[in-house]
Amino acid sequence: MALVVQKYGGTSVGTTDRIKNVASRIIKTYEAGNEVVVVVSAMSGETNKLVALADAMCDIPDNREYDVVVATGEQVTIGLLAMHLKSLGYNAKSYQGWQVPIKTDSTFSKARIESIDDTKIRADLKAGSIIIVAGFQGVDKDGNVTTLGRGGSDTSAVALAAALKADVCEIYTDVDGIYTTDPNICKDATKVDKISYDEMLELASLGAKVLQLRSVEFAKKYSVDIHVRSSLNENTGTIVTREDKDMEGILVSGVAYDKNEAKIAVLGVPDKPGIAARLLTPLSDAAIPVDMIVQNVSHDGLTDLTFTVTKADLKKALQITNEAAKEIDAKEIVTKEDIAKVSIVGLGMRSHSGVATRMFSALSKNNINIAMISTSEIKISVVIDEKYTELAVRILHEEFGLAG
Amino acid sequence: MALVVQKYGGTSVGTTDRIKNVASRIIKTYEAGNEVVVVVSAMSGETNKLVALADAMCDIPDNREYDVVVATGEQVTIGLLAMHLKSLGYNAKSYQGWQVPIKTDSTFSKARIESIDDTKIRADLKAGSIIIVAGFQGVDKDGNVTTLGRGGSDTSAVALAAALKADVCEIYTDVDGIYTTDPNICKDATKVDKISYDEMLELASLGAKVLQLRSVEFAKKYSVDIHVRSSLNENTGTIVTREDKDMEGILVSGVAYDKNEAKIAVLGVPDKPGIAARLLTPLSDAAIPVDMIVQNVSHDGLTDLTFTVTKADLKKALQITNEAAKEIDAKEIVTKEDIAKVSIVGLGMRSHSGVATRMFSALSKNNINIAMISTSEIKISVVIDEKYTELAVRILHEEFGLAG
Repeated sequence: MALVVQKYGGTSVGTTDRIKNVASRIIKTYEAGNEVVVVVSAMSGETNKLVALADAMCDIPDNREYDVVVATGEQVTIGLLAMHLKSLGYNAKSYQGWQVPIKTDSTFSKARIESIDDTKIRADLKAGSIIIVAGFQGVDKDGNVTTLGRGGSDTSAVALAAALKADVCEIYTDVDGIYTTDPNICKDATKVDKISYDEMLELASLGAKVLQLRSVEFAKKYSVDIHVRSSLNENTGTIVTREDKDMEGILVSGVAYDKNEAKIAVLGVPDKPGIAARLLTPLSDAAIPVDMIVQNVSHDGLTDLTFTVTKADLKKALQITNEAAKEIDAKEIVTKEDIAKVSIVGLGMRSHSGVATRMFSALSKNNINIAMISTSEIKISVVIDEKYTELAVRILHEEFGLAG
Repeated sequence: MALVVQKYGGTSVGTTDRIKNVASRIIKTYEAGNEVVVVVSAMSGETNKLVALADAMCDIPDNREYDVVVATGEQVTIGLLAMHLKSLGYNAKSYQGWQVPIKTDSTFSKARIESIDDTKIRADLKAGSIIIVAGFQGVDKDGNVTTLGRGGSDTSAVALAAALKADVCEIYTDVDGIYTTDPNICKDATKVDKISYDEMLELASLGAKVLQLRSVEFAKKYSVDIHVRSSLNENTGTIVTREDKDMEGILVSGVAYDKNEAKIAVLGVPDKPGIAARLLTPLSDAAIPVDMIVQNVSHDGLTDLTFTVTKADLKKALQITNEAAKEIDAKEIVTKEDIAKVSIVGLGMRSHSGVATRMFSALSKNNINIAMISTSEIKISVVIDEKYTELAVRILHEEFGLAG
């Protein structure tokens, strides 16, 4: 007997019929002798509807009240799923975040899970119940409802799996697992059987939207094995797990891309110590995340500083940067939105040199110009013209032998 | 400075624009120097949508999970209203039932309020906040979400007013108050300025659907003045309050009708002690409320027993009655659905005789046949053919001088 945590996303519970399908899968796992804890998202479209209502009430909704509204989406799903299981004769019980409780900090809309009290769930599991928990939500120390941000249900599932010391955390989605790249771009993209937390973290943050970044951080911290798989078939998906010897043999595990960033270049800045801080601190004060940062070598005492933000933040970031640029006597500010970030990720890079060179050559051979470069121990990202995104992904996928 | 509890029903908060109108009214009350606690229902139509989802999941939804689903309707409204008030610069805070907490028993879908802890709300009121509470919902001793049944938000409001010792409980609706009868039937129906709890209880239970019955019971028990008024204008509505000397002078305060009942007649029953109990106990065991009961005088050792149930319960009630009738050797069972109950209510009846005679004569003069009669201290009800309902109401409204 194993303890299995399963998470079903919005598409998997998008209609009452799909919720019934999910129930069948849960029953199969339960009947096989497992203890089952299920985490569900809101029915697809519901969260957007709730957000639209909030937007109709005011320009910038109060965060506490926004969470009160959007948390209802998951609450509906848990009730519907639990009542269906009960109507089929199974013991099932729904839990909202505050009922578990899943304790979070008070950062409404982006709350972080602090602790999970598993007493009630354990007692119900022992009594033979199937547990249905609302994803995406928790409760802070003052009894306010909080939500974990888009995709937060993944984190709810992994955190529950950690708290319950579950044998596995299955994340059901509409794809078969993690692919070497986007199959919509590369027909020969292949499913990865096993991938390390660190590689998954890089891929998640690079725009491969299968898992929420924080859920992978959580899984790594508590060594929770995540099984990403399809809710439409019985295929084995991808296991996200601790790094092992085999994984290091693979130079590059995947190619990711992200069209969601924009570039801001501050040109002709007098090259003095502290200019990067003076430019970027106001942005972090305004809670605008900056991704890639490049500072060119100085010519004639002037230097250029280029960085990327999400397209959604561009307008606000530009406004802030304009002010900061005046203070440091920058000559000009240039922005560019039609860019893309293309990245390769692999544990093997750590022990093999020359991966970056191979990447740059492959792109240059195909006349794709590189505007920015950023690297980590297991990742190399480049910024290129947006129109070359698909081409670059295909080139790199082939260059590093990822085709099926 | 007064403490005002205001309740807004589903129609008053039916769209985001209407919620904004409600906010204006709340602000007006707050700016006049009052402490304001607001109870809201789900946006009109939302509860029906949630019920439809539950119905799609199973034939008879589990009560606990049903409450989890339908309680979301009110949760959305409190969040939207609170965020709008905050965006206008007012301190506002939403409360779900469990957050107050409003403690109920565990009768899911028809829970009864047991106690309200006013500590948190009092503290927030003191800090200048406008309090927005989800109507219709509470929490039981085990931390399960419960709901109070249709119209339960009225009861939430009155119970909060009692707990907070509010100066008044304003129930906002889409009519101007309590009328002497349904203005759709009688063009000259008039608004009643003041009515006693007992009269309102009779009217509420007789199908004048302005207030939930239990809310009036609660108001009577804790002497809470209810002000029923329109959310569309500033008119004074009807005050539901303790009985006073003036009220006794009025013979009949209102004429009510109810087309929602059906009649079951059990004919040719051997007239022995205990037959009524043997017929009716199985119905009460099945939680089917029986309203009017009439047993005719016995002829040749045989008697007839007639009673009414709601049309919704008819099928089930008939099945149960068929079995019970066999056991007591009844000859025949006859049902009739096209009936209506028409009633007059008034404190004055207690001290004036002849009211019943006047009622029966007025109906008979117009050739309306009376099938059943039932009376209480302050009410006389008759069952007639459904097609005469409107005529009977108009006749009685005129007979007792209720026209404007």
